[in-house]
Amino acid sequence: MKKIFFFLLISSFSFGQIDKVEPPFWWSDMNLSDVQIMFYGKNIAQNDVSVSNGIIIKSIQKTENPNYIFVTIDTKNVAAQDFIFTFKNKNKSFTRNYSIKPRRDNSRLRKGFDSSDMIYLIMSDRFANGNPNNDSTKETIEKADRSDKDGRHGGDIEGIIQHLDYIKELGATAVWPTPLCEDNDDRGSYHTYGQSDVYTIDSRFGNNEDYLRLSMELHKRGMKNIMDYVTNHWGYKHWMMNDLPTYDWIHQFPGYAQTNYRMTTQFDTNASKIDAKMCMDGWFVKSMPDLNQSNPLVLNYLTQNAIWWIEYADLDGFRVDTYSYNDKNAIAKWTKAITDEYPNFNIVGEVWMYDQAQMAYWQKDSRIGAIQSFNSYLPSVMDFTLQDAIANGTFNEDKQDWRNGMVKVYENFNNDFLYPNINNILVFFENHDTNRLNNLYKNDFKKYQMALSLIATVRGIPQIYYGSEIGMAGDKNNGDGDIRRDFPGGWNGDANNAFTASGRSAEQQKYHDFTAKLFNWRKSKSVIHSGKTTHYVPQNNVYVYFRHNQNESVMVVINNNSEKQILKTNRFHENIKDYKTGKDIISEKLFDLQNDLEIEGKSVFILELNK
Amino acid sequence: MKKIFFFLLISSFSFGQIDKVEPPFWWSDMNLSDVQIMFYGKNIAQNDVSVSNGIIIKSIQKTENPNYIFVTIDTKNVAAQDFIFTFKNKNKSFTRNYSIKPRRDNSRLRKGFDSSDMIYLIMSDRFANGNPNNDSTKETIEKADRSDKDGRHGGDIEGIIQHLDYIKELGATAVWPTPLCEDNDDRGSYHTYGQSDVYTIDSRFGNNEDYLRLSMELHKRGMKNIMDYVTNHWGYKHWMMNDLPTYDWIHQFPGYAQTNYRMTTQFDTNASKIDAKMCMDGWFVKSMPDLNQSNPLVLNYLTQNAIWWIEYADLDGFRVDTYSYNDKNAIAKWTKAITDEYPNFNIVGEVWMYDQAQMAYWQKDSRIGAIQSFNSYLPSVMDFTLQDAIANGTFNEDKQDWRNGMVKVYENFNNDFLYPNINNILVFFENHDTNRLNNLYKNDFKKYQMALSLIATVRGIPQIYYGSEIGMAGDKNNGDGDIRRDFPGGWNGDANNAFTASGRSAEQQKYHDFTAKLFNWRKSKSVIHSGKTTHYVPQNNVYVYFRHNQNESVMVVINNNSEKQILKTNRFHENIKDYKTGKDIISEKLFDLQNDLEIEGKSVFILELNK
Repeated sequence: MKKIFFFLLISSFSFGQIDKVEPPFWWSDMNLSDVQIMFYGKNIAQNDVSVSNGIIIKSIQKTENPNYIFVTIDTKNVAAQDFIFTFKNKNKSFTRNYSIKPRRDNSRLRKGFDSSDMIYLIMSDRFANGNPNNDSTKETIEKADRSDKDGRHGGDIEGIIQHLDYIKELGATAVWPTPLCEDNDDRGSYHTYGQSDVYTIDSRFGNNEDYLRLSMELHKRGMKNIMDYVTNHWGYKHWMMNDLPTYDWIHQFPGYAQTNYRMTTQFDTNASKIDAKMCMDGWFVKSMPDLNQSNPLVLNYLTQNAIWWIEYADLDGFRVDTYSYNDKNAIAKWTKAITDEYPNFNIVGEVWMYDQAQMAYWQKDSRIGAIQSFNSYLPSVMDFTLQDAIANGTFNEDKQDWRNGMVKVYENFNNDFLYPNINNILVFFENHDTNRLNNLYKNDFKKYQMALSLIATVRGIPQIYYGSEIGMAGDKNNGDGDIRRDFPGGWNGDANNAFTASGRSAEQQKYHDFTAKLFNWRKSKSVIHSGKTTHYVPQNNVYVYFRHNQNESVMVVINNNSEKQILKTNRFHENIKDYKTGKDIISEKLFDLQNDLEIEGKSVFILELNK
Repeated sequence: MKKIFFFLLISSFSFGQIDKVEPPFWWSDMNLSDVQIMFYGKNIAQNDVSVSNGIIIKSIQKTENPNYIFVTIDTKNVAAQDFIFTFKNKNKSFTRNYSIKPRRDNSRLRKGFDSSDMIYLIMSDRFANGNPNNDSTKETIEKADRSDKDGRHGGDIEGIIQHLDYIKELGATAVWPTPLCEDNDDRGSYHTYGQSDVYTIDSRFGNNEDYLRLSMELHKRGMKNIMDYVTNHWGYKHWMMNDLPTYDWIHQFPGYAQTNYRMTTQFDTNASKIDAKMCMDGWFVKSMPDLNQSNPLVLNYLTQNAIWWIEYADLDGFRVDTYSYNDKNAIAKWTKAITDEYPNFNIVGEVWMYDQAQMAYWQKDSRIGAIQSFNSYLPSVMDFTLQDAIANGTFNEDKQDWRNGMVKVYENFNNDFLYPNINNILVFFENHDTNRLNNLYKNDFKKYQMALSLIATVRGIPQIYYGSEIGMAGDKNNGDGDIRRDFPGGWNGDANNAFTASGRSAEQQKYHDFTAKLFNWRKSKSVIHSGKTTHYVPQNNVYVYFRHNQNESVMVVINNNSEKQILKTNRFHENIKDYKTGKDIISEKLFDLQNDLEIEGKSVFILELNK
């Protein structure tokens, strides 16, 4: 190392080398107009910096590491243009071009995903291999090995684009691919939550232009692109890790310190300081250095990066990983900066807790957060208690008792008033970190129907996980790889191609038909998107609820009892009094609401009511 | 009946007969000075009413039942005195004396029970039979039968008074006897939650004077008297039930309608109207007519009755039965009226829910209630989630996992910030409606020690249930009678007299010694009464927390692991840095805080820290 250092000093070539400029460009007319540009290069901080075109430098910040310089320019009222930074040390100087680009029309008011959407979550490496040429690349360490369940299988952006029609026909209106930025870990890089370069799409997934093209292809179909953003940590192979801008860029400990995962310490007034610190500052896993967002340089870096991606890739939303592991005040600032820039953008945070008050704490304008004068500014959270109720065997509980059976699901909705915006909450029964529903319920199609109907008709934004719709199973106890299996047909030569009706088995087709029918119906149902909910205490393990507005009403009946049940409709008088009949949207059977409703064991009605 | 009616009409004696005057008297200088006096007598509403001594009648209210008249007098600035009501119909008249009594000194500012107290809950019929002469009385239907576990056994007020020294020596500072007002049910009247006269102590328990004497004897010992008050319902034998003041005095349905017990409907914005109505208006059980507190006459009756008892019997607190089954707005008015009258009085409501946000909803000035513009004015609630965690087998879970073992207890305290007043919350592991701890844990003394230490040292007001302290068991699955067994020694001739050390078995003595030592220690520990809590995420099933204030610190270590554990004390640095040693208050052993702490499996340390 010392030798190289000496070489650099005497080499005229090395002077003026800039390895990174981030963000690489910016836009005019941005709310975030004080852009803090990070220049990275050998001893770059030894230079004086100036800028052309009358652009104003508001501040220059240096750190203990001379290889970084942070230059904040004021772009307010600066038209789109190219200009030049000049770096000068004594009588030597060099330059770097920089661009302010014209902003996309209506970018600021872009509308994020909402409860009219259905989100299709894709494990990007495991969905479809659209471009077999990029399965392994020279820029990245880990090579494709489809035989390794924890290895890279070759799924990519091109694969997603090629199957957007499939996704659309299923009734989805948005895709959430797991992270696509470069993750250059030696092993297990396929999930891409340990990123090595947050301004660059991983070459095994494609490139930045491909990612923009994904947005364009989605928008062409009236669909939305949700980026999986990670603020809490990067990968240990992130390029900065060998040469940190500041010692406290990441949380460092004597030895390794892992988070205790106890997110309750973020608000628990009884928590010890050390536990709270270990939750926030401990590392999620050993390979993921924990970012210190309480350092304003770090926070600013993350904020600009996030906004850069929205603007560059024309995004419609973020899903933010491990949201509640971040320093809560810092992440609130990050979230506010983004929603200040894009007031109608949507961001859903992964707040994986088992208590509604605790999750509601994290939603924007929470009255519970307000107890501690906290506002996260996070528009959306995930309904993990509903997921927990479903995953905890509810549909195996044939008989209802005080706390089990459909009561567990009913009770999930008792606390809806705790959430400041109950329609902006993600509802799902599985994701890439949970057991597969079809594993939990042993591919019992009736239970899939009950669970999916629930997700599709309760308040909030439904999210399904690729493969659910063809009955894909997977057991988390066998490792994450098992809940992230390749979608059949995504690879050339796959024996089973579930992307096409002709390629699907009868069993897969059954799941697919039901899923597509349900979500295509949901697309136009504003009564489901934003109607009021009225539900009834389950009796005999039958849960009945209505979604209704001034124009429409939908009655959902979920019979979780193994026996056929006969429902007296008069109990629901307040919801059915203006209606005569109900038509099941799946079977298309018509029911007279004056009569008892007879419903088979383990089945669902979704009745559109008619006057 | 008709014959009697005729007789009454022609009898000169019957004219002017008043069967009930309630409240029977009132006091001067009360905040509630507009006293609505209910007169009950045959056709009494046909009279004009006037009053002597210049007392002002503010209003007279009649109902559809001519046998009732409600006369509201203004007692503001009216000195204590006797005066006369005159009832006149045409040229006939009769009178009734009424008293405004002088108020007890400092009555208004009486201090209710608080977190410096320990409450001893007594099933009144099952504790001690101090007066065998009143076991059966002529006024009441059900006669004593100690062989019937659901029958009356003869416990009474005199029995409680005779054992106040026993209770005090145990470390209790307050008693909560189950209701003592008359319950004249034919069967099962012993629990006395179905009352037939709320102005009169049941003659089998004693009389009103005995109840006042109980307060005096308690106060003499520096102890407090907490009345178990029932607002939600009366018994079907209540005298009014044969001749209701108004049809809507109670909730009436075509046929019988039982509550659905789903108290969540009180705030669930999704709840159907009929479910909410059934929760509030449905009857708790068939023998308990549900009072309609939304009728102002009913609410006023209950309010005056409650205040009457506080003032008459010199009470220190209420425990309110089935608080969250009442019409929430009405019961909030009731509670506010009482605390307006006695600003330092304490009232704990039975809000039996399984979610902290839901329970916190009901505490005075709740920020969660405020989401719905609701304020219950209820000073105290019960920590049912803690009880649930303990009763759900926590101490049988030898190994910790993500959600089980001591984590269940730890998690109970994560949400303390939801409660507006966390010190004013009742902590307990059993009561007269739950399984007995000593049944759940098969009289495993170590588990009793862990549970009791927890109750005694966490924030809030500890409550124990008579008999716990001698290891009394009882299985709710065998019926309520089994968790309400007679206290041994409470009846003449009992073979085992656990009230005296000499009468206790070695096993009973072991429980008693531990309980008495713990709670007598607690009496003077303001650090436990009101200190801050700092707790640590359990590791290896060991839960460590500190109670601390500026002067003192107590470290509690509960090792729920079956194996001996060695604790590195440096993890607790922030809490022990100012201290050198800790002395266990039970074993009186001294520990050096610089060293590892070695603790046996299934055991507890309660260490007073010393500098």
